[in-house]
Amino acid sequence: MSHMQTPFDARLRAAAATIEQRLEALLDDTARPGEIARPERLMAAMRHAALAGGKRLRPFLALEATRLLGGPDEAGLRAGLAVELVHCYSLVHDDLPAMDDDDMRRGKPTVHKAFDDATAILVGDALLTLAFEVATQEGADASPAIRAALVAGLARASGLAGMVGGQMLDLAAEGRYGPRTLSEAEIRRLQAMKTGALLAFAAEAGAIAAGASAEDRARLLAYGRALGAAFQIADDILDREATAEALGKAVGKDAERGKGTLVDTLGMEAARAECDRLVAEAQAALAPFGERAGVLVEAARFTVARKA
Amino acid sequence: MSHMQTPFDARLRAAAATIEQRLEALLDDTARPGEIARPERLMAAMRHAALAGGKRLRPFLALEATRLLGGPDEAGLRAGLAVELVHCYSLVHDDLPAMDDDDMRRGKPTVHKAFDDATAILVGDALLTLAFEVATQEGADASPAIRAALVAGLARASGLAGMVGGQMLDLAAEGRYGPRTLSEAEIRRLQAMKTGALLAFAAEAGAIAAGASAEDRARLLAYGRALGAAFQIADDILDREATAEALGKAVGKDAERGKGTLVDTLGMEAARAECDRLVAEAQAALAPFGERAGVLVEAARFTVARKA
Repeated sequence: MSHMQTPFDARLRAAAATIEQRLEALLDDTARPGEIARPERLMAAMRHAALAGGKRLRPFLALEATRLLGGPDEAGLRAGLAVELVHCYSLVHDDLPAMDDDDMRRGKPTVHKAFDDATAILVGDALLTLAFEVATQEGADASPAIRAALVAGLARASGLAGMVGGQMLDLAAEGRYGPRTLSEAEIRRLQAMKTGALLAFAAEAGAIAAGASAEDRARLLAYGRALGAAFQIADDILDREATAEALGKAVGKDAERGKGTLVDTLGMEAARAECDRLVAEAQAALAPFGERAGVLVEAARFTVARKA
Repeated sequence: MSHMQTPFDARLRAAAATIEQRLEALLDDTARPGEIARPERLMAAMRHAALAGGKRLRPFLALEATRLLGGPDEAGLRAGLAVELVHCYSLVHDDLPAMDDDDMRRGKPTVHKAFDDATAILVGDALLTLAFEVATQEGADASPAIRAALVAGLARASGLAGMVGGQMLDLAAEGRYGPRTLSEAEIRRLQAMKTGALLAFAAEAGAIAAGASAEDRARLLAYGRALGAAFQIADDILDREATAEALGKAVGKDAERGKGTLVDTLGMEAARAECDRLVAEAQAALAPFGERAGVLVEAARFTVARKA
């Protein structure tokens, strides 16, 4: 690494390492008590999908939100792990030939390239299902009411009116189902569903896991929504400017498919300004917490400044 | 209808009609408070998948188990609805070209034929996610502890060591990933995962929803496991003997693919005898409830006597 590692980087990396360990432990081949069997091929493909590294931004947000609100790390990690499993499943299904048809992800072959389409479909299904199992696992760290609230929120953020619905709108925006040009409002709505909902929920999940008040939960949700919107614009800027090598996947594919982004609609300069405005909005949502919210504020800045 | 309708038939149909209404209400186009939007195409395809009729055996088992254990109908219906949504999603993904490649289901085009592969993948994802949302919906009928237990059980039955894992083993049994001949024990294990786990959980879910004791919950699970095993053997017998018209889907495909079934391994006569033995086992599990368990005992008999 040629660049300096800041305390924030170190904290982000430490959380990512912990999440990686948890995922490894969760996805081994040994059947748990009450399980009939864990098919080897399925487990290997699930590990390929989930242990591919990445920044683990979503569980980091959950963990730091739990810490901010005085909850136990274990509860935040559990919530973050559930959110990360949903994120991992969505990448596997989105990469399928019938969907975005991507061969590479984080510098490795995608699951359907390394295994096959059928296995990739099942890997996604199994990761999604496992997310809900993790969210309801019994433990001293979260009451049944907290676990039920996590499941309800995760399902809402991920489902037909959240991430999955956003992916449906995204396919339509490619013109698959008839000509389509999106207005700025439609692009924002699509992005709020496709990537925003789960990022926003990651922060809210940390608050739920900490047993936070409805007011504090709403603050973390508002923070997460602003961060999620900024994340997607930053992603669109990266897709336009970065190299395939830096991203570990193909670039410029969105433009090629004719998908509208806010970079097209607003122009590059205004898109960058919008990112900055959203980071300020995220910061403002956490103002009541004062300096204790510093890590999450840095996370919002990191989201728009990242290079991959 | 040329045959007499028994009181059991009437009860099964009444439950199916209620479940159909609930699914319709759940899958309309109107965004709920807190939802951003419900994409029209996704909702239409979800309705195509979930409102295709069928016997609704799984929610019936859940509802009757709740009734047997003195719980409110509403709690049993909610649990049954969640299980049915998982069942519906699994059919959509199993029918995909990359998986079993089926064009017809219950006399209608499958989702990927009526829409397209991408939409069918998303429909499955959204139905699975919705199952967990339904299982945790707040209401006066179930405590947070019950809702969390339903989610945990549903995830276990449906995931990597349950239904999804069973589908992985089933694809391997076709010889896709190298030559493969299954022993009787391997066939039983595959079937216990692929179809047995969710049917067994349907009965257990009704017990959980009723707030039953661990002992009663175990009884319903044992009943459901025997019923689930009988169901699959009956299915294999039907696949060998029925006409495509009666089933509303292609027949003889399992044999064509070289998948082993217990009908092959044991022979037709012994397979029928095994069905009867399993029905007796299901009945024995409910013996402590005496005559009150009559409906569920009939449900086990119905499972092996059905013609479609």
